[in-house]
Amino acid sequence: MKKYLEMTLAERQAEYAAVKAQYDGLKALGLQLNMARGKPGTEQLDMVTDMFTLMLKPEDFVDIDGTETRNYGELAGLPSARALFADILGCRVSQVFVGGNASLQLMYDAIAKAYTHGMLHSEKPWSKLEKVKWLCPAPGYDRHFLISQSFGMELITVPMTEEGPDMDMVEELVKDPAVKGMWNVPKYSNPEGIIYSDAVIHRMANLSPAAPDFMLMWDNAYCIHEFEGGFVPFADILSLCEEAGHADMVYEFASTSKVTLPGSGVGIMACSEANMAHFLSLITVQTIGFDKVNQLRHVKYLKNKEGALALMARHATVLAPKFHAVLDALDREIAPLEIASYRRPTGGYFVSLDAMPGTAKRTLALCKEAGVTMTGAGATFPYGIDPNDSNIRIAPTLPPVAELEQAIEVLCSCLKLAALEKLGV
Amino acid sequence: MKKYLEMTLAERQAEYAAVKAQYDGLKALGLQLNMARGKPGTEQLDMVTDMFTLMLKPEDFVDIDGTETRNYGELAGLPSARALFADILGCRVSQVFVGGNASLQLMYDAIAKAYTHGMLHSEKPWSKLEKVKWLCPAPGYDRHFLISQSFGMELITVPMTEEGPDMDMVEELVKDPAVKGMWNVPKYSNPEGIIYSDAVIHRMANLSPAAPDFMLMWDNAYCIHEFEGGFVPFADILSLCEEAGHADMVYEFASTSKVTLPGSGVGIMACSEANMAHFLSLITVQTIGFDKVNQLRHVKYLKNKEGALALMARHATVLAPKFHAVLDALDREIAPLEIASYRRPTGGYFVSLDAMPGTAKRTLALCKEAGVTMTGAGATFPYGIDPNDSNIRIAPTLPPVAELEQAIEVLCSCLKLAALEKLGV
Repeated sequence: MKKYLEMTLAERQAEYAAVKAQYDGLKALGLQLNMARGKPGTEQLDMVTDMFTLMLKPEDFVDIDGTETRNYGELAGLPSARALFADILGCRVSQVFVGGNASLQLMYDAIAKAYTHGMLHSEKPWSKLEKVKWLCPAPGYDRHFLISQSFGMELITVPMTEEGPDMDMVEELVKDPAVKGMWNVPKYSNPEGIIYSDAVIHRMANLSPAAPDFMLMWDNAYCIHEFEGGFVPFADILSLCEEAGHADMVYEFASTSKVTLPGSGVGIMACSEANMAHFLSLITVQTIGFDKVNQLRHVKYLKNKEGALALMARHATVLAPKFHAVLDALDREIAPLEIASYRRPTGGYFVSLDAMPGTAKRTLALCKEAGVTMTGAGATFPYGIDPNDSNIRIAPTLPPVAELEQAIEVLCSCLKLAALEKLGV
Repeated sequence: MKKYLEMTLAERQAEYAAVKAQYDGLKALGLQLNMARGKPGTEQLDMVTDMFTLMLKPEDFVDIDGTETRNYGELAGLPSARALFADILGCRVSQVFVGGNASLQLMYDAIAKAYTHGMLHSEKPWSKLEKVKWLCPAPGYDRHFLISQSFGMELITVPMTEEGPDMDMVEELVKDPAVKGMWNVPKYSNPEGIIYSDAVIHRMANLSPAAPDFMLMWDNAYCIHEFEGGFVPFADILSLCEEAGHADMVYEFASTSKVTLPGSGVGIMACSEANMAHFLSLITVQTIGFDKVNQLRHVKYLKNKEGALALMARHATVLAPKFHAVLDALDREIAPLEIASYRRPTGGYFVSLDAMPGTAKRTLALCKEAGVTMTGAGATFPYGIDPNDSNIRIAPTLPPVAELEQAIEVLCSCLKLAALEKLGV
């Protein structure tokens, strides 16, 4: 295959006609495929559904320490569930808060409380401040950016490197006292699948922000989510920040949305004991406690870190073929043309692709026309605006492999058409 | 028995010695009893635990309309769960939001969003206002008052009458544009068990607050919670407000915490479709959706209003003897002495007792000394301050009847001792 940039106009026109015919053929199939969100597939849901058989009789609902999960109480979470997630995250039990079915809600609530009440080291609630700025490594997770945007923050884009966010830039930016926090997905970043290097993590823990209440948001969403190769150990950011003398700077999050079930998993926040005491003093006004029955169900099902890793290995057997279907198609159809670059993640839920600048929107519009829904162009950047109109987030986990192969075929055709249109046909 | 007020000093001294001996005997038993919170007893928890046997196989988790409950989605709640609670509350399905395990969280979040973002008709977020005032019918629910207090509102006490809050006062107070809302527990009010009269409800729906974003918080926590007599129908406040031309003024709440399980029930908010659209536009930033598996479990278990009422009749068989144990003891031990008045609720979770003014704190301190934990004195008033130091909330639902009889015996002794101390011994 000839690279598109090296083609003559006539060659591009011929190629366009051929790809267009293929695209029209796919479009005529009336497909309805979705690669938009990081949703597990039905096979994964079925795989864990036996967790619901673990608690049936009244005595199953009393934890080993005697805690009655069916009644009110235990604001910070069921003690055995806190212990389970401390084991997985490598932190202390006293640092773990176990919530409801969404870690996103805990992130939102942590920031909302900074606005309404202020965090431990806040001079006043952020709602009383003129301006709050927030660091957003990009490409990144659209729902993170949306939380910050929703509170009226000024979002500052920090470019991602192979090793994580550009730390020279971060260290400079945090000198501004209006910069109150930063989003991070340190392992298998969304969407690029980058694992922050030890050097980046070290510099992150050693940040000295001017804002006394700077929130290092550490969304460890994919902490045990390898689909290829074995488990990759990760550093306990809480200890690192503590050693650096900034124990109260970091808020870590995780969930079982992609371990057990997105609809009824368990969300976790981990932070210093001092932050925990402050957070509990605020959240006790909001709730008497989250669903402890579901928390105990997770304890009985996952047991410990080892049990969780064993389950993740089973998920990997479902996920790996899906990621390979995507990467194989891109390798075959796109790589030789040199119209896009993409990463080869070994964990997480996404493949991040950078199309020829100025063609992402057009590519996704063509996909939509042919019945393939993708994450909206620009979604991976603050304010939903990709300055290069280039990044495309591929979420290959929901469709069965056969459908996925069709969907990625559509995507490849669309990438080609958009590139050829850009080059002129 | 002679009324305490009619006793001579010598008679009071003799009575004090006799009651003190009885109290010391009870104290020596080393009791550890709790009548502090409205928690269901173990018998009630066990009664509903078979709900967990309804969803075991993968196909059980797909709703009748095809909705997959185990995956992400359905921000406003599972459609069939919205329909179930619309049936129970008598409103439209489109008015119902089904959340996580706590309606308190939905109340908090609604108010939090007024502060951070503003409600539908707000001129600006409440955090930008100088002063927010809030109406608190008292005696009332301490957790309601705490939410308002936590946001720095000025709490205005509205006295309760036999028919509900003093509406003359309410109608006057809402002329102040700084008055932004009001708490209500319209059926079996916490703690008094009062059912708002039709006249009060009519005046409430026809309020014309000066604040365009006034929030009539309608916590219908005990909407189907009769323990004596049959189900008492209640008006749909949403329709009434709509008819009065104030559809967006009211936010109704309910939960299954005391229908199924406090630890893993389902919380509901109901509001106008316009409010719903606004709320969804805000809460979509906070979460992708609450636990739909648990929502479907409730649909399968309760089925409809009729099914819920049948279950409540079973709860009543457990609860009625507990309330009778309390009321019988009070009738026997306290009523003849004329040192306290109390109500005879037929639903809800509490008995409200007004002790001789100036003796509530002392009574509860004596209870605590003897191993009986009660809701703190003053808790039923804004800022935790009962101006008369008189109201005591009795929560008789948690202890088994035998323990309850001991606990109420302790309480009766303490009421007597505190009254005698007050009168002089």
